[in-house]
Amino acid sequence: MQITSFNPRTGHEVTSASETSSSDLVSTCARAAQAAATLRDTSPAERRGWLNALADVLDKDRANLVAVADDETALGPARLDSELSKTIAQTRFYGDVAAEGSYLSLAVDDATDTTPAMVRMCQPIGTVAVFGASNFPFVLGALGHDTAAAIAAGCPVIAKAHRAHLGLSLRLAELAGSAMNDAGAPDGVFDIVFGHDAGVELVRAPQVAAVAFTGSQSGGLALWTIANERPIPIPVYAEMGTINPVIVTPHGAAAMDEVARGFVATFTSSAGQYCTKPGLLLAPEGSEALDRVLAAFRAAAPSPVMLTASIARSVHTGLAEMQAAGATLIEESTYADIGYGAPAAVLEVSLSDIAPGSRLLEECFGAVAVVCTYRTVEEVCAALRTLQASLVAAIFTGADTSDPDVAAVVDVLEGKVGRVVFNGWTTGAPHGWAQNHGGPWPATSNASGTSIGAAALDRFVRPIAFQSAADQWLPRAAQPGNPWNVTRRVNGILHRATT
Amino acid sequence: MQITSFNPRTGHEVTSASETSSSDLVSTCARAAQAAATLRDTSPAERRGWLNALADVLDKDRANLVAVADDETALGPARLDSELSKTIAQTRFYGDVAAEGSYLSLAVDDATDTTPAMVRMCQPIGTVAVFGASNFPFVLGALGHDTAAAIAAGCPVIAKAHRAHLGLSLRLAELAGSAMNDAGAPDGVFDIVFGHDAGVELVRAPQVAAVAFTGSQSGGLALWTIANERPIPIPVYAEMGTINPVIVTPHGAAAMDEVARGFVATFTSSAGQYCTKPGLLLAPEGSEALDRVLAAFRAAAPSPVMLTASIARSVHTGLAEMQAAGATLIEESTYADIGYGAPAAVLEVSLSDIAPGSRLLEECFGAVAVVCTYRTVEEVCAALRTLQASLVAAIFTGADTSDPDVAAVVDVLEGKVGRVVFNGWTTGAPHGWAQNHGGPWPATSNASGTSIGAAALDRFVRPIAFQSAADQWLPRAAQPGNPWNVTRRVNGILHRATT
Repeated sequence: MQITSFNPRTGHEVTSASETSSSDLVSTCARAAQAAATLRDTSPAERRGWLNALADVLDKDRANLVAVADDETALGPARLDSELSKTIAQTRFYGDVAAEGSYLSLAVDDATDTTPAMVRMCQPIGTVAVFGASNFPFVLGALGHDTAAAIAAGCPVIAKAHRAHLGLSLRLAELAGSAMNDAGAPDGVFDIVFGHDAGVELVRAPQVAAVAFTGSQSGGLALWTIANERPIPIPVYAEMGTINPVIVTPHGAAAMDEVARGFVATFTSSAGQYCTKPGLLLAPEGSEALDRVLAAFRAAAPSPVMLTASIARSVHTGLAEMQAAGATLIEESTYADIGYGAPAAVLEVSLSDIAPGSRLLEECFGAVAVVCTYRTVEEVCAALRTLQASLVAAIFTGADTSDPDVAAVVDVLEGKVGRVVFNGWTTGAPHGWAQNHGGPWPATSNASGTSIGAAALDRFVRPIAFQSAADQWLPRAAQPGNPWNVTRRVNGILHRATT
Repeated sequence: MQITSFNPRTGHEVTSASETSSSDLVSTCARAAQAAATLRDTSPAERRGWLNALADVLDKDRANLVAVADDETALGPARLDSELSKTIAQTRFYGDVAAEGSYLSLAVDDATDTTPAMVRMCQPIGTVAVFGASNFPFVLGALGHDTAAAIAAGCPVIAKAHRAHLGLSLRLAELAGSAMNDAGAPDGVFDIVFGHDAGVELVRAPQVAAVAFTGSQSGGLALWTIANERPIPIPVYAEMGTINPVIVTPHGAAAMDEVARGFVATFTSSAGQYCTKPGLLLAPEGSEALDRVLAAFRAAAPSPVMLTASIARSVHTGLAEMQAAGATLIEESTYADIGYGAPAAVLEVSLSDIAPGSRLLEECFGAVAVVCTYRTVEEVCAALRTLQASLVAAIFTGADTSDPDVAAVVDVLEGKVGRVVFNGWTTGAPHGWAQNHGGPWPATSNASGTSIGAAALDRFVRPIAFQSAADQWLPRAAQPGNPWNVTRRVNGILHRATT
């Protein structure tokens, strides 16, 4: 079977690819398993070399990659060029994180009179299946955060190409294969498969040890269910779309005009296709939040083009569902009547309509957002407690630090999100040692994991202890003299890698 | 409904307790949720104080605790006294681990020209339900590793009392409550419930955020299923019984006599009631492994008394199943005909009977073990690959370090177990920074966790990031000056707590 990607601006075909057959999938998995055995014995520094080589070719092929991606996503060259730059930087970053070695959690307890010598360290979990996002073809795509983090941790990756960017996926796979091979990586360290059925078979494949997914709740939970039905279930790290509330405190409402403009600019940017899109603005009564959002919305005059025909349809469906759930449509933008145009929209709800189970608490993918006013901070905190968990929330506070309402709001948010942004917007999640891009169920299927930031590697390793092992039987990382120069703990004391 | 514990030596009643009613469970969970909110703001050092107070009272009540435990388990005063000592030490250890602060994974990235300031740290996950083991009333019981690790990490615990040690559970709960309260802990930091139904309701309770379990595969997987069926699934850390293979290399067979005696002493100790019991001995042909095991078995003359009537019955069932699956019963010990006596036994299988799905690959709880000989190391490695995963494996090698077969065996074992023991026995898993007591599915339901050792805390926390937060809005641990004096990473560089 052939699958096809389309130009969202015109609806015309861009690229066709064959769905991966079952027999091809089997050999792809076998090749990855062989690579996994090799990777287990490579040092993080070696793998950093592969990732740096990959980053180099991504940079060299920049103009072509951006053009191909723009054809299939309509996200625009400027945004895509910037996204590719981030991808290049993050690819290098995960190599550096691996080389530092904390992800190994290497601990050495010498023998005592009553206890044996013990060495504990993490080993790569095995082949990782990566299901990239539609909305970030580079940063969270086939060669995005999940792939770089998995390879950095010593795991081969089989990516399932998103059907919206087949041409880009083919090009990325071609670049990745040759660049990493040239840098010394074994065959099978990265591969790509095409088609829905191949994706499902991938999650069921005995060689696959973990799944990383970025996308919709329905897609993520479907993979999670399949993975749990395996004879040997495997972890699924699904990062899913959420509503990502924004709370303006009474003090913060002094800057309501600026907040309203930022809100509109953020929720309409890239046609609102962010898993971190701020989908719900909670502002105090009297702040004229709705009027100011409406003014900004009209000034911005968004005209969204969605990534795919089905996403464009889902905007209409989502708008209808939100209205059926009690939201009032305040304004809808015009949009192109060719390709995958869809409206941007502002809706209003009353706080009392926000009840557990309501459609209003779920993401509406696209440039659609809801404005809601509250009377008291107690009231808004109570409402926040009923929200399903989100990846991120923002709070806008007074300019000084005496805002009396921040503590109560943050206290609630801490239990509801993976990241709290102060006086800023939720989109954009730069990689770093301190980033967390995750959150309680159903923001993710595994709240202990993050898909962005140094801790992303932790998802793809498994601890093992060696008791009373002679030095030469220990994994290389754990041998005396610290041959890989990694951070480790000796008799309870942490020693960092020397730089 | 009343439930009752019995004296395994006589079958006589020891203690009766009322099953926890649904309404009592609801209030227990509500009290824990309140404690959880308080605990989130306590420092690890404060919680260490509570755990040290708990350790102190366990030590003070030692004679009584050992007597009560012996009445209900028949494990013997010497073993129980030693187990209690370990429990006291581990309770203090987890407090120290918490105070060191690495479990917080605190990372601070200062703002740059292009990225916002970010702080990431772990917060306690909330109330933890602990299902303790039958076979370790102290070390892995109501106040065992899971409970101490959870409290150290800032999580209240609701333990489900094991029905085999109701009297002990009541006493432990009484001691824990008063000791920790006196030391400043809030009400609800530890509570205990009774009865099967209460256990199931506990896993379903909305306030419960994680489950820790030690016991059988069937029990652990049942809880895992219930937890995954919740509207908001929660992580289950089930540590389950496995076969724990022992491999004697051709070089190692030079000491076959000593290995055989150690094997028998280990698998019959405490009536074989260890999740780390070595259940399968793989020795080279010509090592006279079976003869030597048999001689040691006859010399030891074990007469096991099992923890419960149902465990005693399951020994008989297990023996029958193993024989039906192709094992030959070589010798069965005599046993007491009052109380919960059951046979110890040695069985033999041929390597060709070890095939995926066979009953021979699963634990037979009790003083029952299987001996198997192999011709080549390749052959035994192939067999090991078909085993289901175990908590631990042992390898007996030659006395010098030139044994040529170790690398191949360890290579296979690394993918199959959570701990590899060299020239020693699998039972006993001392706490420490480098311990790992876990393993791939179905040894545990979550291979990234350990129920023993410093990393045990990691199961009970969840990361969250704070972006562009003014200092005073950060959690106390993350505030400038490092007020809790914890290990943290600043701009990528790890700084350990000062001692």
